[in-house]
Amino acid sequence: MGSGSLSTRRSFFGAAGGAALLCTIGGETVTIDGPRSLRKADAAAARVGRPRGAALSQAILPIQPAPGGVRKEYWIQAETARLAITPGRRDEWHDKAVPGGRNEFTAYVYREMTPGFAEYRFGAAMPGPMLTAEVGDVLVVHFRNGDTKLRQAVTMHPHGVKYNPEYDGSYMGEFTRAGGFIAPGESFTYQWECTPDSVGAWPYHDHGPNHTLNTFRGLFGSIVVRPRGAKWPDRVYTLFAHTLPPPVTGLERAFQCFNGRAYAGSTPMLVSRVGEDVEVHAIGMDSNFHTFHIHGHRWRDPAGAFIDNPTFGPNETVTARFVEDNPGRWLYHCHVFSHQDAGMAGWYVVE
Amino acid sequence: MGSGSLSTRRSFFGAAGGAALLCTIGGETVTIDGPRSLRKADAAAARVGRPRGAALSQAILPIQPAPGGVRKEYWIQAETARLAITPGRRDEWHDKAVPGGRNEFTAYVYREMTPGFAEYRFGAAMPGPMLTAEVGDVLVVHFRNGDTKLRQAVTMHPHGVKYNPEYDGSYMGEFTRAGGFIAPGESFTYQWECTPDSVGAWPYHDHGPNHTLNTFRGLFGSIVVRPRGAKWPDRVYTLFAHTLPPPVTGLERAFQCFNGRAYAGSTPMLVSRVGEDVEVHAIGMDSNFHTFHIHGHRWRDPAGAFIDNPTFGPNETVTARFVEDNPGRWLYHCHVFSHQDAGMAGWYVVE
Amino acid sequence: MGSGSLSTRRSFFGAAGGAALLCTIGGETVTIDGPRSLRKADAAAARVGRPRGAALSQAILPIQPAPGGVRKEYWIQAETARLAITPGRRDEWHDKAVPGGRNEFTAYVYREMTPGFAEYRFGAAMPGPMLTAEVGDVLVVHFRNGDTKLRQAVTMHPHGVKYNPEYDGSYMGEFTRAGGFIAPGESFTYQWECTPDSVGAWPYHDHGPNHTLNTFRGLFGSIVVRPRGAKWPDRVYTLFAHTLPPPVTGLERAFQCFNGRAYAGSTPMLVSRVGEDVEVHAIGMDSNFHTFHIHGHRWRDPAGAFIDNPTFGPNETVTARFVEDNPGRWLYHCHVFSHQDAGMAGWYVVE
Repeated sequence: MGSGSLSTRRSFFGAAGGAALLCTIGGETVTIDGPRSLRKADAAAARVGRPRGAALSQAILPIQPAPGGVRKEYWIQAETARLAITPGRRDEWHDKAVPGGRNEFTAYVYREMTPGFAEYRFGAAMPGPMLTAEVGDVLVVHFRNGDTKLRQAVTMHPHGVKYNPEYDGSYMGEFTRAGGFIAPGESFTYQWECTPDSVGAWPYHDHGPNHTLNTFRGLFGSIVVRPRGAKWPDRVYTLFAHTLPPPVTGLERAFQCFNGRAYAGSTPMLVSRVGEDVEVHAIGMDSNFHTFHIHGHRWRDPAGAFIDNPTFGPNETVTARFVEDNPGRWLYHCHVFSHQDAGMAGWYVVE
Repeated sequence: MGSGSLSTRRSFFGAAGGAALLCTIGGETVTIDGPRSLRKADAAAARVGRPRGAALSQAILPIQPAPGGVRKEYWIQAETARLAITPGRRDEWHDKAVPGGRNEFTAYVYREMTPGFAEYRFGAAMPGPMLTAEVGDVLVVHFRNGDTKLRQAVTMHPHGVKYNPEYDGSYMGEFTRAGGFIAPGESFTYQWECTPDSVGAWPYHDHGPNHTLNTFRGLFGSIVVRPRGAKWPDRVYTLFAHTLPPPVTGLERAFQCFNGRAYAGSTPMLVSRVGEDVEVHAIGMDSNFHTFHIHGHRWRDPAGAFIDNPTFGPNETVTARFVEDNPGRWLYHCHVFSHQDAGMAGWYVVE
Repeated sequence: MGSGSLSTRRSFFGAAGGAALLCTIGGETVTIDGPRSLRKADAAAARVGRPRGAALSQAILPIQPAPGGVRKEYWIQAETARLAITPGRRDEWHDKAVPGGRNEFTAYVYREMTPGFAEYRFGAAMPGPMLTAEVGDVLVVHFRNGDTKLRQAVTMHPHGVKYNPEYDGSYMGEFTRAGGFIAPGESFTYQWECTPDSVGAWPYHDHGPNHTLNTFRGLFGSIVVRPRGAKWPDRVYTLFAHTLPPPVTGLERAFQCFNGRAYAGSTPMLVSRVGEDVEVHAIGMDSNFHTFHIHGHRWRDPAGAFIDNPTFGPNETVTARFVEDNPGRWLYHCHVFSHQDAGMAGWYVVE
């Protein structure tokens, strides 16, 4: 103590939430607090064997959509990628350089591909693709574990949609079904039904044997389901609020992020025009609780009350939706002071 | 740091939330961080004298129920008991043994008895009995402090129901009323009115001079009030999300629990059948915030929005209610990663 | 470890949340953990220069209220003041003296003044004045940075109301507008519109270059907007839940506060009479999450569900409103055990 600078890793950990990450991996509990324990966690995950009930002899019986619905197909591959947390190198809110420059680390992300896993649609990024559907549709997600370095099973587990246990995408020890253990190089097709109670914005994420570590690394994305025929807003944004701590990144300090990026200038810049119908979904994806605030804007919560800064927890969604009427450059941020000061902020520009 | 194992108590405390427990006991502040300070806290609690206004000369004037209602009587005794946090010895989610076997500790629990404190109705367990009533009823709770070892006053403080200050069940220094200080061996009868705004599921818990420590030890239970004549669901479950930290248990590490148990295989196994009306109440009972997620299921929040993982705080309730339509074995868990990986998970089996 | 007393600062910090405060100040990140780093943070803030776009050449174009509305003017000055956290010296809940006596520290507060900054309306206190308005009004806030000691810019940033970027009151680096950088001795007039979606209770707070530290010091207040012509309740209270940690106060330990005060006997005593329409707004103002509980009372959440202990986050409001029907002396408190035991509790007395 005593010094106010970032002189010691320990002091920063305490203040910015970069403490050790606790993971239970195939029943082995590992406290990740540095590169050695990170390797140990991955080694433990690589040792987890395929559960008996999780054989991949998948005879896909196509689940039919409800009348008027469609089978909407996605091709998604999980793989590691070097990503930068602060590619803008500056904290534009406070007008200063971010120490560490781009702050790259090895992320683990879902990447959307063209049919048959032919080509990448986009560059590697966090989060994975937004899966969109209407009530009555079936989301058909062809998933491939494309990673060769970490040698461990991963999955896709969705919130909000309906699925039978085969498509839960969760490792559950001896109770695991096929979709809950996709080893490196393997593929699996999930079928998720969009029922009337699926309307909303939801996360999906890894739920394999090393899910906490791999979710912290970036294996998450969003699902947005609307009523059949509902108007799509003019702008739809999804912002995942999460931390990238030193145990996961190997970097000197923790970053409080939106979508894998920290600090205005690197986090997503939201844009809209006056008169547009704007929708922003904020979703928690770490072990912290957050709030979501957009300067200059208010909206209704599901009960109809006016809010501008609601609380949300891990894998919970809050949605801001409004007709834009206030031009300018605005900050959006989590209002937990220790989060906003460690990067959880960005720009929203209304032209 | 450096090691990824559970080799040191310190490292685990940091990761699993097992830090010291701060208690204010009769104005004495004790930071409980081990057996010695635990004894010190109990000794401080034993020194708290009966406040002047808390004489037990209780002339019970029966509070009459509203027309159509009844006086519903319970007999409940508080006592210590050796309970196991992981009686199943295995983490079935991750298919591994839990270190420490059954992990027993000295809990403090409410036990339901037959009229006149004649016999125990059930074995000692956490939480205490679910008190149920309809609007218009008066809950009449005959309470006895049956513990002889800890030599300190305890109480029952309810949420959700209406009561006059005598039946608040809270120690308040010189402002304490009779129901706020029930010494070892003493009895007191609480009368709690179920008014129209009592509809819902609520916690009750100790609010005596050592309430934080004793609530952490297990002195809590639930109250469920329904509109008069309302249909009772086919299944009603109450899950208290709370931590059992080393200062309280004397064990090597913290456990993140549902109902005093940690890890699927030891936590309550919820069961139902397709077509049944199922209701699950999740209630916070520690200093953390939690979310409650059931795989494969969604429900409406009070505003009518669809959710599957709402946030809740200490002594706050969130309720999942749905007609079961999805057979299989499902995980339920808190979605705070550091909680679910330290035991806060269980099975829900739909036949 | 080992000792259960408050013998070491470290142990108490861990238990009562008094850890270091992370601040980003003009892009400089300072971890405040003692007097030296506190001075360093203030020095960093004093070095932040006026951004180019934040020239104070303010030609006020009065924003006109909606038909039926008014321009409601306030005069508010920010200044430091020595305030006591525990002026009552006793924890009346637990009937014991609070160590440290009055526990004074240097706060930073908003003070309401008469027109033209002629005179103080009240003594220095935390929070700043409650600004009240109806839909259609324009809140016209003449603000002066009246502090001479800390030599840094501060602002007023409101929630809930509508404003153009000039009146956002936020430092944003090179994107800062005039209202986002009010240097010592300078004044600025904010104009905030109360639109239909402004109905509710909201915080305002500093959002200048050193906003985290200065907000923790006490630069916050409330705004309450009602529908035009709506009945004002008989009693309206605003309670800010926040921590005053050692890095900010220089005191031995952290205090968990309502309105800058800790422990029943020093925190605000709420009063009402049976039959009155009572409204209590609880607003978070630190980096923690809280719940708000009043013994003996229940109320409706915005969705119409009955509650008595809702969760709220930093700069989020929850409102209890009820017709008083239960005479007596009641505790109100945050139900996070580690908060209520460190001071976040008070009395509500119904005559």
